Amino acid sequence: MSTQAGQVFSREALEQVLKRRFFYAPSFEIYGGVSGFYDFGPPGCALQSNLIDVWRKHFILEEDMLEVDCTCLTPYEVLKTSGHVDKFADWMCKDLKTGEIFRADHLVEEVLEARLKGDKAARGIKEEVKEEDEDKKKRKKKVKEIKNVKLDDEVVAEYENILAQIDNYDGPALGELIAKYDITNPTTGGKLEPPVEFNLMFETAIGPSGNLKGYLRPETAQGQFLNFGKLLDYNNEKMPFASASIGRSFRNEIAPRSGLLRVREFIQAEIEHFVDPENKKHPRFVEVKDVKLNFLPSHVQESGHTETVEKSIGDAVAEGMVDNETLGYFIARIALYLASIGIDPKRTRFRQHMANEMAHYASDCWDAELHTSYGWIEAIGCADRSAYDLSVHAARTNEKLVVREPLPEPKTVERWECEIQKKKFGPKFRKDAGTVEKWLTSRTECELEDLAQELKSSGKITADVPEVGQVEIDSDLVSIDKVTRTEHIREYTPNVIEPSFGIGRILYSLFEHSFYTRENDADRGVLSLPPLVAPTKVLVVPLSNAAELKPITQKVSAYIRKQKLPFKVDDSSASIGKRYARNDELGTPFGITIDFDSVKDDSVTLRDRDTTKQVRGTFEDVVDAIKAMTYDGVSWDDATKNLKVFEGQTGE
Amino acid sequence: MSTQAGQVFSREALEQVLKRRFFYAPSFEIYGGVSGFYDFGPPGCALQSNLIDVWRKHFILEEDMLEVDCTCLTPYEVLKTSGHVDKFADWMCKDLKTGEIFRADHLVEEVLEARLKGDKAARGIKEEVKEEDEDKKKRKKKVKEIKNVKLDDEVVAEYENILAQIDNYDGPALGELIAKYDITNPTTGGKLEPPVEFNLMFETAIGPSGNLKGYLRPETAQGQFLNFGKLLDYNNEKMPFASASIGRSFRNEIAPRSGLLRVREFIQAEIEHFVDPENKKHPRFVEVKDVKLNFLPSHVQESGHTETVEKSIGDAVAEGMVDNETLGYFIARIALYLASIGIDPKRTRFRQHMANEMAHYASDCWDAELHTSYGWIEAIGCADRSAYDLSVHAARTNEKLVVREPLPEPKTVERWECEIQKKKFGPKFRKDAGTVEKWLTSRTECELEDLAQELKSSGKITADVPEVGQVEIDSDLVSIDKVTRTEHIREYTPNVIEPSFGIGRILYSLFEHSFYTRENDADRGVLSLPPLVAPTKVLVVPLSNAAELKPITQKVSAYIRKQKLPFKVDDSSASIGKRYARNDELGTPFGITIDFDSVKDDSVTLRDRDTTKQVRGTFEDVVDAIKAMTYDGVSWDDATKNLKVFEGQTGE
Repeated sequence: MSTQAGQVFSREALEQVLKRRFFYAPSFEIYGGVSGFYDFGPPGCALQSNLIDVWRKHFILEEDMLEVDCTCLTPYEVLKTSGHVDKFADWMCKDLKTGEIFRADHLVEEVLEARLKGDKAARGIKEEVKEEDEDKKKRKKKVKEIKNVKLDDEVVAEYENILAQIDNYDGPALGELIAKYDITNPTTGGKLEPPVEFNLMFETAIGPSGNLKGYLRPETAQGQFLNFGKLLDYNNEKMPFASASIGRSFRNEIAPRSGLLRVREFIQAEIEHFVDPENKKHPRFVEVKDVKLNFLPSHVQESGHTETVEKSIGDAVAEGMVDNETLGYFIARIALYLASIGIDPKRTRFRQHMANEMAHYASDCWDAELHTSYGWIEAIGCADRSAYDLSVHAARTNEKLVVREPLPEPKTVERWECEIQKKKFGPKFRKDAGTVEKWLTSRTECELEDLAQELKSSGKITADVPEVGQVEIDSDLVSIDKVTRTEHIREYTPNVIEPSFGIGRILYSLFEHSFYTRENDADRGVLSLPPLVAPTKVLVVPLSNAAELKPITQKVSAYIRKQKLPFKVDDSSASIGKRYARNDELGTPFGITIDFDSVKDDSVTLRDRDTTKQVRGTFEDVVDAIKAMTYDGVSWDDATKNLKVFEGQTGE
Repeated sequence: MSTQAGQVFSREALEQVLKRRFFYAPSFEIYGGVSGFYDFGPPGCALQSNLIDVWRKHFILEEDMLEVDCTCLTPYEVLKTSGHVDKFADWMCKDLKTGEIFRADHLVEEVLEARLKGDKAARGIKEEVKEEDEDKKKRKKKVKEIKNVKLDDEVVAEYENILAQIDNYDGPALGELIAKYDITNPTTGGKLEPPVEFNLMFETAIGPSGNLKGYLRPETAQGQFLNFGKLLDYNNEKMPFASASIGRSFRNEIAPRSGLLRVREFIQAEIEHFVDPENKKHPRFVEVKDVKLNFLPSHVQESGHTETVEKSIGDAVAEGMVDNETLGYFIARIALYLASIGIDPKRTRFRQHMANEMAHYASDCWDAELHTSYGWIEAIGCADRSAYDLSVHAARTNEKLVVREPLPEPKTVERWECEIQKKKFGPKFRKDAGTVEKWLTSRTECELEDLAQELKSSGKITADVPEVGQVEIDSDLVSIDKVTRTEHIREYTPNVIEPSFGIGRILYSLFEHSFYTRENDADRGVLSLPPLVAPTKVLVVPLSNAAELKPITQKVSAYIRKQKLPFKVDDSSASIGKRYARNDELGTPFGITIDFDSVKDDSVTLRDRDTTKQVRGTFEDVVDAIKAMTYDGVSWDDATKNLKVFEGQTGE
């Protein structure tokens, strides 16, 4: 893996820069820290909010999405219904002797990779130097059994096949792998218990009685689903529409590692695009259809391979590889967002979920994966979740989460309907009458047909009504019949297309994609962050701290402040070169040098971080150029065409 | 209480508007809701982020504060040290019979207020109609004993005195009041248990073992204190400086009520200004010294009164009423922020904490209180917390959280110092040697003097060293003596001035301060939000949905989008009046009407929400005027002086 300047990438060098400039650091570090938690310092905080700001403009403002801000704390019932209480878990293996706990899939991956490496060494195959693999190396050092043992050719093939689809195994399958391949505690060689599920939600109690169980949300999506009715109303009942949320989510990871890539508290930006299940075309698909992307479809992975195929999103949808236009539209928009903030498109791929990996209700799902020194990492998911979420909450709460649209022309339909004898129904169920009635009237066609059958055969319905319990409804209280109706209204539960972003993972990948060192000095790191997202856009450097440079420095600062460009002044006594080096590490794209000529004619030098080119002009013209490059995407050549090339005293 | 248009304020009318326009709503409402949790819909979300955005510019950018973003989850140890595990609690009373739980101070307040009201009724004193007191009325309805009973004059005086300083009582004192005044469960009259403490932090377990106890942070401050060392380094060791954080905090309130005013999850914006304890002057104090404010000092409250005194912050500091310039500077800056977002300065006061109310370490503390229909509510705290926070974390972790500054000239000082005999010390304490040594060397002068005394008298020191336990240090391992040194460096622990904002409370007060109804129509509510913070700045309304108005509507929209002004188009078939009324409720300050003349000459009508005045000009000029009024604080008269007064077809 190499940097954009062609050097071998060193994660260690990058991490030193990020630490030295306080982009982020382990939380509670003076208390020894807790793995999976990081605090952002001033430049990290600014970079993060710029990524979010661009996201908001690119998605929410561009498409008039409805932004909502929901609570992190969520009561048990909501997450029970959504399936998180039962299924939001990873598989862990315990070593009963040492008390250590391993995440099962990571353990299998780690051990098999170590064995393959040992095999290669035994066969005398030299691996290419992969500086980026330090983290894996560190982990592998721990793998006790990493001996240079040659494996049978078919074992090597088996291992490679498993690794290509490691996300496709559930707990029992991982258990089988662990048993079959004799995988043990890597440090001690001790035996491990079979994988058990560990729920990843943080649990707490709400209120002084301690009786109301709650969780920290593991995703922002549920708040959006629960507010669907209010949002549809706010949108004047118009479909399709999207809601969006940007906020914290929490996952109690079993064994967090890999820095910002696997943390227990993180910022998520999620979109829920509500769409008619019978029409997933997208009016703006034509605008993105020619965007070319790298795809890794499920069938390739399932056959044990990882080669991507490049094609346009238009072709991918036309061929049916990507399920529908709306899903395809968002996949392309995700790629455009990533490119705009500085992620390398060559190190971006879209990987389709495999059969076992995808939720049973989803009709298609693609992850945007970014290549880093940790390998390919999932940064964004983009799934068509069908009507699952709205349906389960509607069924549980008896609230109708549906769209009602006038039909273009009336339609005659046969339908199962239930009629309730209110006079008898009320007295029979008393305070529960409303709930039982709502339950009955919110059944699906299919369920009603079954209930009609039951009513016919046994003269009553026995049902388990949430919040009421088991009830018996006799045939004198209700009748269920197939009736013919002329309908003027179509009622449907929207499907949901959900692009879901992990901001921290994008942020970290951006660090790796933008880091390089100066050609002539490996100690001089540069973060080539695009001006749009860089924490500080311009550094103002007076040539020296001579008193006569102060007034012009203040004049220039006041002008930049008025233009609302984030900037810093560095009037310390360090050399110009040192001051610029410091700001290269902070990713500051532009520098303005103020010298003794500036005092005379208001001219300043503008320096470009990446090329170190310099040009000269009045400070107003220079600031205009910076604004154009930062906010309007104008190139250096275009923005500076009226400024003079400068090769003066401020060279480094 | 009356609106700015002079009408009697109706909270019910306001709440209907806020609900109808989905500014916010109870979270998980389709599941029945959980008290103390609210979700923000699109306009509430936008308004909230505008308040935060103005805050960031007013405080962080204006003063180059260092913004950090720390985690919500916090391990036990950190909050144990900060004092939250032991002391962050409210007092609650249980009714063992019914299981009900009451917050003790609120209960006393409620019952005494109800009795005073009954007394007034018995005396035939008519209270002024206070529409705003609906919430209190509702609560009081529950107070069973609210009978029109005349009280003795001295009892009335006692009650009033208690209510004026209700925040000054701790749990035992509240218990005495409950006993003395025979306060019982208001609905049943049942006896209550004495007040017990209930810790307000939400607790959870971090990691798969379940052994690491953690809490959701009750404030953002601790993350800032823990990062002090890194921030000082980032700031090139320069003092004073401030850090700031904007993020969620969580408090498990005993009995949340009063809507957004008392919630369990909320956004806090906090500043920690680190300052030299020997110099709390502020270089920019002179800029704010003439700002006039309403003060309610502690001695007035302690004498049972609530009258405020108006004076300039300059005078308040000069008189010593406000402890120091830096504290005073922030108090004034808080007032300026509030006024800039639309809070009524006449309904803003600064209340000083009373002796029992203030933390023992604090040297002064003032709350910015805003007047609402719930009474005066605390929205912002501004405290001088002295060196408390940094000192306790330093003592617990043995990390030096100090500033080191070169002295202007060397100074001879006498100081207690301890000298360690490393050769013996190491072997004695082995792996703990470092920790014990750090503990010894981080003692204060005062503590060293005591230890020297102990060493002298008993020949050893017995100490409880965190993470090590009890140790004995003999006099052959260490000596502690008073030595004379020439110092070149001054080392000190900074003091902290902490302005701490509850964004939700400010938001709710803003709703109340800006709500009124149209003179001729009590059903037509208006939120007169200042353009700077309004969710949408301008509504574009084509006069009809005639096809010929579409191109010019698109042209105007494209122009506004390019100017980055948040706007909406309403081309529904509702009347112009209805469409404007809808947006009055959303607080949209400006309207642009497009009519058939617009097609000919690009002219449009600009409407002002509050005055309903209309002027006419080209859409470019109109948008320029809107931008000037929104972002540059230009008045209507100045911004529209080149536009023509309009009294045409779009009247309502």
